[in-house]
Amino acid sequence: MAARPLVLDDDRLLPVDPAVRAIAREVHARVRDLPLFCPHGHVDAALLARDEPFADPARLLVVPDHYVTRMLVSQGARLEELGVPGTGGGPVERDGRAVWRRFCAGWHLFRGTPSRLWLEQELHDVLGVRVHPSPETADELYDQLVERLAEPSCRPRALFDAFGIELLATTDAPADALADHAAIAASSWGGTVVPTFRPDAVVHLDRPGWRGDVEELGRAAGEDVGTYAGYLAALQRRREHFRRAGARATDHGHLSADTTPMERADAERAYAAALRGPLEPARAAAFAAHMLFESARMSREDGLVMQLHAGVLRDHDPLVRARSGPDRGFDVPVAVDFTRGLRPLLNAFGSDPAFRCVVFTTDETTFSRELAPLAGVYPALRLGAPWWFLDSPAAMRRFREAVTETAGFWNTAGFVDDTRAFASIPARHDVARRVDAGFLAGLVAGGQLALDEAVETAVALASTIPRAAYAPREG
Amino acid sequence: MAARPLVLDDDRLLPVDPAVRAIAREVHARVRDLPLFCPHGHVDAALLARDEPFADPARLLVVPDHYVTRMLVSQGARLEELGVPGTGGGPVERDGRAVWRRFCAGWHLFRGTPSRLWLEQELHDVLGVRVHPSPETADELYDQLVERLAEPSCRPRALFDAFGIELLATTDAPADALADHAAIAASSWGGTVVPTFRPDAVVHLDRPGWRGDVEELGRAAGEDVGTYAGYLAALQRRREHFRRAGARATDHGHLSADTTPMERADAERAYAAALRGPLEPARAAAFAAHMLFESARMSREDGLVMQLHAGVLRDHDPLVRARSGPDRGFDVPVAVDFTRGLRPLLNAFGSDPAFRCVVFTTDETTFSRELAPLAGVYPALRLGAPWWFLDSPAAMRRFREAVTETAGFWNTAGFVDDTRAFASIPARHDVARRVDAGFLAGLVAGGQLALDEAVETAVALASTIPRAAYAPREG
Amino acid sequence: MAARPLVLDDDRLLPVDPAVRAIAREVHARVRDLPLFCPHGHVDAALLARDEPFADPARLLVVPDHYVTRMLVSQGARLEELGVPGTGGGPVERDGRAVWRRFCAGWHLFRGTPSRLWLEQELHDVLGVRVHPSPETADELYDQLVERLAEPSCRPRALFDAFGIELLATTDAPADALADHAAIAASSWGGTVVPTFRPDAVVHLDRPGWRGDVEELGRAAGEDVGTYAGYLAALQRRREHFRRAGARATDHGHLSADTTPMERADAERAYAAALRGPLEPARAAAFAAHMLFESARMSREDGLVMQLHAGVLRDHDPLVRARSGPDRGFDVPVAVDFTRGLRPLLNAFGSDPAFRCVVFTTDETTFSRELAPLAGVYPALRLGAPWWFLDSPAAMRRFREAVTETAGFWNTAGFVDDTRAFASIPARHDVARRVDAGFLAGLVAGGQLALDEAVETAVALASTIPRAAYAPREG
Repeated sequence: MAARPLVLDDDRLLPVDPAVRAIAREVHARVRDLPLFCPHGHVDAALLARDEPFADPARLLVVPDHYVTRMLVSQGARLEELGVPGTGGGPVERDGRAVWRRFCAGWHLFRGTPSRLWLEQELHDVLGVRVHPSPETADELYDQLVERLAEPSCRPRALFDAFGIELLATTDAPADALADHAAIAASSWGGTVVPTFRPDAVVHLDRPGWRGDVEELGRAAGEDVGTYAGYLAALQRRREHFRRAGARATDHGHLSADTTPMERADAERAYAAALRGPLEPARAAAFAAHMLFESARMSREDGLVMQLHAGVLRDHDPLVRARSGPDRGFDVPVAVDFTRGLRPLLNAFGSDPAFRCVVFTTDETTFSRELAPLAGVYPALRLGAPWWFLDSPAAMRRFREAVTETAGFWNTAGFVDDTRAFASIPARHDVARRVDAGFLAGLVAGGQLALDEAVETAVALASTIPRAAYAPREG
Repeated sequence: MAARPLVLDDDRLLPVDPAVRAIAREVHARVRDLPLFCPHGHVDAALLARDEPFADPARLLVVPDHYVTRMLVSQGARLEELGVPGTGGGPVERDGRAVWRRFCAGWHLFRGTPSRLWLEQELHDVLGVRVHPSPETADELYDQLVERLAEPSCRPRALFDAFGIELLATTDAPADALADHAAIAASSWGGTVVPTFRPDAVVHLDRPGWRGDVEELGRAAGEDVGTYAGYLAALQRRREHFRRAGARATDHGHLSADTTPMERADAERAYAAALRGPLEPARAAAFAAHMLFESARMSREDGLVMQLHAGVLRDHDPLVRARSGPDRGFDVPVAVDFTRGLRPLLNAFGSDPAFRCVVFTTDETTFSRELAPLAGVYPALRLGAPWWFLDSPAAMRRFREAVTETAGFWNTAGFVDDTRAFASIPARHDVARRVDAGFLAGLVAGGQLALDEAVETAVALASTIPRAAYAPREG
Repeated sequence: MAARPLVLDDDRLLPVDPAVRAIAREVHARVRDLPLFCPHGHVDAALLARDEPFADPARLLVVPDHYVTRMLVSQGARLEELGVPGTGGGPVERDGRAVWRRFCAGWHLFRGTPSRLWLEQELHDVLGVRVHPSPETADELYDQLVERLAEPSCRPRALFDAFGIELLATTDAPADALADHAAIAASSWGGTVVPTFRPDAVVHLDRPGWRGDVEELGRAAGEDVGTYAGYLAALQRRREHFRRAGARATDHGHLSADTTPMERADAERAYAAALRGPLEPARAAAFAAHMLFESARMSREDGLVMQLHAGVLRDHDPLVRARSGPDRGFDVPVAVDFTRGLRPLLNAFGSDPAFRCVVFTTDETTFSRELAPLAGVYPALRLGAPWWFLDSPAAMRRFREAVTETAGFWNTAGFVDDTRAFASIPARHDVARRVDAGFLAGLVAGGQLALDEAVETAVALASTIPRAAYAPREG
């Protein structure tokens, strides 16, 4: 079989009707080259601090990307075979080429997925690939990519500049010294890389390792975390450290959207109990909800934007967690009740101009039923881009369809790439911009919007809206 | 910036594919000018009884429309700044022009929303406006509208006649004397304005003001509401009063869809307890569910169609409620379980030819999962038009897509405008008729329907189906 | 009124845009005549064992099809009037022609429903009808159909062969002797008809008739079902009997997706209690969940594929159940929690190559939120075709839209017709193939897929994917 040429359709993802496509092209043309504003993601700051070449094609494109590994696992591959090391140090495939071959053999599995879109554009635009992965092309591609990755233009900082990234936010543990961020700031390189304060490890009292994480927090903050008061003070100090390092936001990953505050004495007792030993899950959940309320209170004080990612059951398979660690593709969404969950937080802070909250969900049933009605009235609330399993063209279209009629465009927060896969960032923004251009073109074709309004709105979605959503608030 | 001309695209909301659009045009042409049958809405009967000119553009289009004010609030305006008076009599913007300017400055926020569609058509067709609102055009528009509102052709009854309204149902408290309805009936004007019996205030035992409302009910009915038996008798008498005033239906707004009846003795005890003092929420909720069952029983007796609007948490922000009153845009939907909730009611009355129930939801997940399967088999049940946040083109399309394959067209109940904004009624029906024409055209283009069937169905949806759904039942 | 000609649009259900339609045609042309693989359905094996002519048009197309009768009931017909006999032997319409007239008079009710598509194609392609049903054509059609049904080419086996059915799976009670399957196997006719093991009647301890069903199971298996151990042994023996008769799979209809195993002693006690008398619903539900886990364990042993149909509340109206029996169209879906429900089963067996589970739902909110994320990582899990109320063009499109971006195509299980209506099988597969062709064509037109990939995927969906999903597993 001849190698299938890898060509990017310049009209990809735009509406298929010729008249609507023509409008969409016009809209897209005005946003496609705008700088990339990346206020939420999971790129490691060390990558840009060290600026070393990427290891090999498999370690760039396969091993760290749980979108890719989970699909291969679903069809029978084992994580170890894909180069993902076990926590116990058992056998793992160390040959990048072997992992790459496996990936190429499973290329058809990605048909119709966003991974395919991201990978295609990354391969084509960033890495210069011109044939599709397949068993036949695997080796040739591997060699070509190894060569390409060795070029100076393929180093992280060079790519950052070439991508036109205006700001890149990482996501960091509360005790993180942010040394890599400091190193970047101190370097001669001009890229803006800012941290994000993510206290999950220390607010979920029943997380394995909580005790160690909270002690580390205390050390980093120079506070005695032996009391609840010291714990709060430590969090506040670390937030301040992050803020000074350029942080725009905090980030909170919770199973539920509950934000009910506890009485101070109850919170103190729960915290003290957790220091003494294991806590029953319901009490830990109540404390986590309480800490969302407290985080909102702190945000109102220090102006950090509060991001909430709710409704994903982490480590659905505990055996995978034990064998291979977290973030291995075994996180699965559940239904969420935002209307009741966010009520305490929004009643207290939702109309406060000093507060800003951006909410993300993988439960799209809440788009029209809960999130758009909430964001369409509470001034503090903005809707985050469709998240995780919904970060894909059809889901993005459903998001705009479900949300716009109630919340409009200005109550959304713009696109976030939310990725560990640094080199896929432009492709991800491009997908969002194409989908938005197509959606706006549909409104124009349907007589709901003038073309210049559509263009203006697309530009706002790609630039002013996310910048405003993540602008530091003033108390 | 030059003023953007306000033009209505004659093909707005029709499908974009030229061939499908041509079919849709043909279908729409057959229904666009049919009379408007309005069996559910919130226009104040006094408006048509008094037939006075509208006050000013802001008081017509902004102040009373919570769709409009909530959007402006979501972007930082305060209700008082928009002319909405506080309950405590604090400062409020009394200058219509100032409110109007604020609205015009926020016009872009409505892009992609149904408010924009309704307002555009109202401005264009009813008020003769030919430029878009904007900071630059605000004052000129205000002056022009003030002038227009003073014209005799712009008075409520003249508009009613010009709109081609065949019947307009209002929504009224159970103790309402219906004096305005009587005045209209006694007048020389020929418009049909009928009341709807909405007992919410007296069936939710924990509503603030319940005691006063139930006493007023007793007085209006001439019954002793000191006992549960007297309370039921009062409700029945008032229903009869409404029926004689032309009422077609009752209306019930509940948080859940629960319709479980209580034992008579339990209902009596709950009622007596509520008379004595505050009731725990669960008991009040059980009584409200019971009263849905009782209302169905009464409907079977007197033939009034029972409308159920379930699943909206009213007054999400209690502070707004305290400061500015109810219906200020702070009502937010929750998930609803219709399958289990409606079971007692449908088991008892769902196959009874003397009973008719029309159900509305803002939880669109129930369209295909629960409501279409229920309406597709129980003869007493009809599906109401997509409600509130779903009363919009994309949501209407999703409704038809989700519902038709299981329930067909004849188990839906036709469009209801459900509005306080009298002058927007034609625009709202027009949106529904365009969406239905487009949906039917899609079935024709997809080979599922012949063109004459599509036309016949569109006409039925706009005329015979709602008339049949709201026809008084015979016991 | 002149009879409306019944013509099948050769492009029906394909996308309407001319360019996309052209692609879809090309894709569909490659699959439209592929053999029909039917691994799940409800055709009675006796039909093919006896191979007798169908009784009359009403008994072929109306009486046994609860899709058809429920729609007529929803508009006022009574089941008895439609020829559905009551359980108590009361009056029932026995005149096929009278039932047929009623059906023809209600033909418009099916506009936009899949029943209309299935019936049209069946009437046209199988039965040679060339005019639409209507009050005017009812009698003429009835006569024509009576004649057609008497032809040898219209007998079940002849149709089976003409339809190109490669394998047809029935669904059978665990105690069924499978005599009809044996008779077919022993006959000279070459059709492949295999049973499916459906133990629902014996795992729901609170089902009416459970005691009798479990005793029958014991007799059929030659095991003493007086103990839980004997009960398990009986199930295993019967599975083996089914497996030897060619069964590929088991099937499980449950209200919830809970798969939590019980302690052995608890299961024994619950079973013993059920033998003694009525069980409380919660305990019966816990046992049913346990038996899903046990069934998975057995599947891993014997290689039978496990099908789960979760989330339908059977016999919503108990009066209909009492008067007319089960499966009368009064089954209504509820929301399902697959993420938590399937967790025990998937943790234990979801990564086991010897296990395969195909999950079906009528709660489409779980497509993107739960099922695609689960199937996109657990190798044992495949997503069944959109089920029951979702077995329709628009719902199928929503399924592909919601599922593909996360789970791809290869984690779905292909189409199942799931029908009692034997003669509708080709029409049902045709609908699915058209929808898939259209979906794939959309990906091609949107630049996400090459045409040859689309064709290859369509062929896989119609052939290799379902064959692999239902291939007997090796332990």
